Amino acid sequence: MKKVRVGIIGAGRIGKIHADNLLRMAEAEVVAISDLFAGDELQAWAGERGIGLVTTDSSELIRHPDIDAVFICSSTDTHVPLIVQAAEAGKHVFCEKPVSMDADRTREALQAVRKAGVKLQIGFNRRFDHNFKRLRELVAQGRIGEPHIVKITSRDPNPPSPEYVKVSGGIFMDMAIHDFDMARYVTGSEVESVFAQGAVLVDPAIAELGDLDTAITTLTFASGALAVIDNSRRAAYGYDQRVEVFGSKGAVSADNDYPNTVVVSDEDGVGRDKPLHFFLERYNEAYVEETKMFIDSVLHDRPLPVEGFDGLQAELIALAAKQSVKLGKPVKLSELA
Amino acid sequence: MKKVRVGIIGAGRIGKIHADNLLRMAEAEVVAISDLFAGDELQAWAGERGIGLVTTDSSELIRHPDIDAVFICSSTDTHVPLIVQAAEAGKHVFCEKPVSMDADRTREALQAVRKAGVKLQIGFNRRFDHNFKRLRELVAQGRIGEPHIVKITSRDPNPPSPEYVKVSGGIFMDMAIHDFDMARYVTGSEVESVFAQGAVLVDPAIAELGDLDTAITTLTFASGALAVIDNSRRAAYGYDQRVEVFGSKGAVSADNDYPNTVVVSDEDGVGRDKPLHFFLERYNEAYVEETKMFIDSVLHDRPLPVEGFDGLQAELIALAAKQSVKLGKPVKLSELA
Amino acid sequence: MKKVRVGIIGAGRIGKIHADNLLRMAEAEVVAISDLFAGDELQAWAGERGIGLVTTDSSELIRHPDIDAVFICSSTDTHVPLIVQAAEAGKHVFCEKPVSMDADRTREALQAVRKAGVKLQIGFNRRFDHNFKRLRELVAQGRIGEPHIVKITSRDPNPPSPEYVKVSGGIFMDMAIHDFDMARYVTGSEVESVFAQGAVLVDPAIAELGDLDTAITTLTFASGALAVIDNSRRAAYGYDQRVEVFGSKGAVSADNDYPNTVVVSDEDGVGRDKPLHFFLERYNEAYVEETKMFIDSVLHDRPLPVEGFDGLQAELIALAAKQSVKLGKPVKLSELA
Amino acid sequence: MKKVRVGIIGAGRIGKIHADNLLRMAEAEVVAISDLFAGDELQAWAGERGIGLVTTDSSELIRHPDIDAVFICSSTDTHVPLIVQAAEAGKHVFCEKPVSMDADRTREALQAVRKAGVKLQIGFNRRFDHNFKRLRELVAQGRIGEPHIVKITSRDPNPPSPEYVKVSGGIFMDMAIHDFDMARYVTGSEVESVFAQGAVLVDPAIAELGDLDTAITTLTFASGALAVIDNSRRAAYGYDQRVEVFGSKGAVSADNDYPNTVVVSDEDGVGRDKPLHFFLERYNEAYVEETKMFIDSVLHDRPLPVEGFDGLQAELIALAAKQSVKLGKPVKLSELA
Repeated sequence: MKKVRVGIIGAGRIGKIHADNLLRMAEAEVVAISDLFAGDELQAWAGERGIGLVTTDSSELIRHPDIDAVFICSSTDTHVPLIVQAAEAGKHVFCEKPVSMDADRTREALQAVRKAGVKLQIGFNRRFDHNFKRLRELVAQGRIGEPHIVKITSRDPNPPSPEYVKVSGGIFMDMAIHDFDMARYVTGSEVESVFAQGAVLVDPAIAELGDLDTAITTLTFASGALAVIDNSRRAAYGYDQRVEVFGSKGAVSADNDYPNTVVVSDEDGVGRDKPLHFFLERYNEAYVEETKMFIDSVLHDRPLPVEGFDGLQAELIALAAKQSVKLGKPVKLSELA
Repeated sequence: MKKVRVGIIGAGRIGKIHADNLLRMAEAEVVAISDLFAGDELQAWAGERGIGLVTTDSSELIRHPDIDAVFICSSTDTHVPLIVQAAEAGKHVFCEKPVSMDADRTREALQAVRKAGVKLQIGFNRRFDHNFKRLRELVAQGRIGEPHIVKITSRDPNPPSPEYVKVSGGIFMDMAIHDFDMARYVTGSEVESVFAQGAVLVDPAIAELGDLDTAITTLTFASGALAVIDNSRRAAYGYDQRVEVFGSKGAVSADNDYPNTVVVSDEDGVGRDKPLHFFLERYNEAYVEETKMFIDSVLHDRPLPVEGFDGLQAELIALAAKQSVKLGKPVKLSELA
Repeated sequence: MKKVRVGIIGAGRIGKIHADNLLRMAEAEVVAISDLFAGDELQAWAGERGIGLVTTDSSELIRHPDIDAVFICSSTDTHVPLIVQAAEAGKHVFCEKPVSMDADRTREALQAVRKAGVKLQIGFNRRFDHNFKRLRELVAQGRIGEPHIVKITSRDPNPPSPEYVKVSGGIFMDMAIHDFDMARYVTGSEVESVFAQGAVLVDPAIAELGDLDTAITTLTFASGALAVIDNSRRAAYGYDQRVEVFGSKGAVSADNDYPNTVVVSDEDGVGRDKPLHFFLERYNEAYVEETKMFIDSVLHDRPLPVEGFDGLQAELIALAAKQSVKLGKPVKLSELA
Repeated sequence: MKKVRVGIIGAGRIGKIHADNLLRMAEAEVVAISDLFAGDELQAWAGERGIGLVTTDSSELIRHPDIDAVFICSSTDTHVPLIVQAAEAGKHVFCEKPVSMDADRTREALQAVRKAGVKLQIGFNRRFDHNFKRLRELVAQGRIGEPHIVKITSRDPNPPSPEYVKVSGGIFMDMAIHDFDMARYVTGSEVESVFAQGAVLVDPAIAELGDLDTAITTLTFASGALAVIDNSRRAAYGYDQRVEVFGSKGAVSADNDYPNTVVVSDEDGVGRDKPLHFFLERYNEAYVEETKMFIDSVLHDRPLPVEGFDGLQAELIALAAKQSVKLGKPVKLSELA
């Protein structure tokens, strides 16, 4: 194999971003794109990029003999069947998070992948962020000794639409799942128990849908460390994505990224522009990086940076968080049905 | 009254600090100091400062006709009887935290104070810190809208001695109590429930004494807001005291204080000195300020900045936290026996 | 014209960067590249990128009927003849700085461009840096009132090789010329007089070549404002590129860019990684942006963001600085022979 | 001697500050205060502080047998005669800057001091600022190698009144003189030549008085280092006092002090309060420190932290700057008449 030939399933925003990132890599080729609603617009879009096959049928794409790997960017409920199908067809898989909202179904997908001996990378893009990568590097080097406390701030600039909320799986499965993965990533330890509290303080429509828009989740790790994650669906000042790890020898913290370093001082005070607005701005390079590493891993048979198991663990934490809110007490991962 | 004539009970470090701060105020006079172990050294110390009376008998001091107010800086177990005695003698009281470790006893003290019509201020010095005061001011002005999430970081540079730990009442009653008060102070709302988790990650000696050295406490407020506090008995880089309040219109955060603003850039990176080492350095001005406001309140019969009720509430949260760790689940303040 | 067809003259580092940036733009096409030493390696490099013509003869490239614009990235002494030749052939020109080290020769090039009615953009890439662009924007909006004082810090991580220094035109013409342009850019005013002082504090080899490695230049502007620029050929902590503009209503300052926002706190203090290492890292996006704007300007006949006149002015300031050091006194631009 | 008995000459703002600082020191005693316009108000002020003697006659104070040292805080024109008189009376002297505006007269004062064997400290309070002291310490330790470039920013929040400007000696002698001393302090090297440029951009009234309100001064040092100082009489955002030293192994920089560390993030951006307003706020502790060190030096016969010679050198730089503006070219200190 000299190039990884890729098929993209799902031509939404994230599918197109992955396609464009892949198109810029010498070691990848985008051969096909499928979408349930593929039409003239997608044809034109693909045409400009020299993507030969556009189809509404993801099976056609998966079975295509010129395709080595698929990117699953369709809706969450399609992830498991598509992973299974791809694995059985001997294709490597990159799948957006979450694999599913049901641990057993996710395990089923992982099982199919294992059996087929293909690779499955989960789209935890934040692991590839320049700040969090550096932070993890420093922790792994022992720069702060043993991690004791992890603090993750994760707030979006604006709540999603009610339509999105409805199918999102809720704030823990949809939003905090990234933070659950981050907590595992920066500590290198497994979560044992979860206590979550939530509220609807931003948008009453979210309450009507049975979801939360504000949450605090605490985690305990096998290593003895503790973590706390706070989430909000709306930060007036934009995307707030910070991580701090405190340990026996010190602490590391990663601040937000800003569009520029300009500071204005005047009669009213000293100020600067807001942080980068949202995930597309903040994690732009991280998306490129995760794709590069997937391609590299497939091409040279190297270990994946994020595996199916990581997807499963984050889902389990999300499920535990959801149950914890319901029960009003901490839930152990080992207790999950 | 033209000056408030003060007697200090307890000549430990904090008692002496209050004395020295009072001595610099035109509106206060330090008339007497008592300590169980008062001897030649304290006599000399008092002599240099023109403090006329040094005694081992706190009752003598409390009953002294030339004393308007007492500062109770002796050990915690003496607080309630001394407050009661002082109140009955018609003296105003400034008392270090906690009033006691038993809510009923604290209520008893508050009752005596109320009955006597004297003032009782609790030594929550951090409310007077220039950073937290400004932060509270901005929240109170509505600058960030409704508070949704409060995050408090509170870490000491070094764990206390086992002797101290033994009588301290534990990490929640001794250390986190300041943070519990801070959470109430910055939100202006009452705490409803508490969930606390802890670990011994710093010093096994602390475990032997049945205490914790690392803790994460989450609070829910009557307003619907959530708070999280993380504590550690040892931060390698010194005293870490930060507060962040996130609300519907934005966020305010107060960082640590540093001994200077000097930044060094060299081949290894860009660095600066550690934050101010511990509470005496960081809260130096706050101690002066709290004393000033107490004196001012007594002299001009103005409202106190921190009342007995504030002491009681913080103690209740500490008790709930302790119980929550024991039970492994959240505890409502209203459920406390 | 639907695409600008470009020929690159000079296949050094900067020529290749421009080529790669142009190759990613839908509105540009790289048709040819010329280099005096073009050989197999360049052929291979061009082949991978689908650049059809590789030649040692820049005239062939300039005369090529399928080329609309040329990027002059060859050595400084070739700039003027190539600009003249390109202009006479009706080609638009993007030329690296400086146009020449002789104001009359530069004027000659500008005259040819004017006569031919083609466009000439000078490679002052820093105008396109996200920080300086934002800073200029704020000044232009009147955010700080009238500019009074401009301060530019411009230090390289390492001195160039003696071979480079020999042909560089000296620290003012080679390095500070960017800062001279920056001073004009951020103030929007013309420089009237220059006083420069220099020293050799970094590398004695530079002294042997009659050049300086450390310099402070002060400028006066027609507007009455003052500026000061400090240059060093070696900053131990890497590339230091900061600008501050102080005015009647406040100040704006642009700090360096860093590879990440991670801060480490430990027993030794609080630190972070060094700033981005050098111009390729720091001005990566600025190179893309300047190229985009040139292509856009050619394609849609829009005004250039940096014109030949800007190149001339910066050169005049550099010449004045050089003369100022020689004479030991300030030099007016109007006095330059 | 167990205490230094001090007399204060000049009961203006700065005289009173020194008095209050001395009154708080166990090793100092304020015995007398003199002022040309001493009246009831000063009597009352002194009475509250237990200062026994209030007089309009500075000679009475200087001759007083119970006085060991005098603080000269009267107008600049009185400094030399008072220093001479005090020296002849065997009294140690603390004198505000500048000693005079005439180098010969200053030398005369220094001569008298030398002859009498008394101590003379000049009021360069900024050397005692926590930031600049730490910066100097790091430079002296060799942390940044050999200093190459010094940059000093020094801007006031508001221009002084025309009355003050009239007798101030001009921006260089009155304001920049502090920065000239700072340049010598942080480098530990002597200035050889001065080039200054100025403008009136803030207040036309200052032009009418023949003075400047905006200036840039460059200095060359015996060590080969270069320095640049920028001054403005009005910074909209308050007092701007920063120093940066760049050297062979790195750089150190000292930022402004702020009233708090609170950062507000909202829809408009991220901001904080302005720096500490003016010298009384910023240099509050530095005033205490310089006084302490003077008292300590007198009491224990230790070296002074700032000597008469330092006063003279800063004055010479100021005179050179003034002449440089007049001549429009650099002036060597050795050339000064």
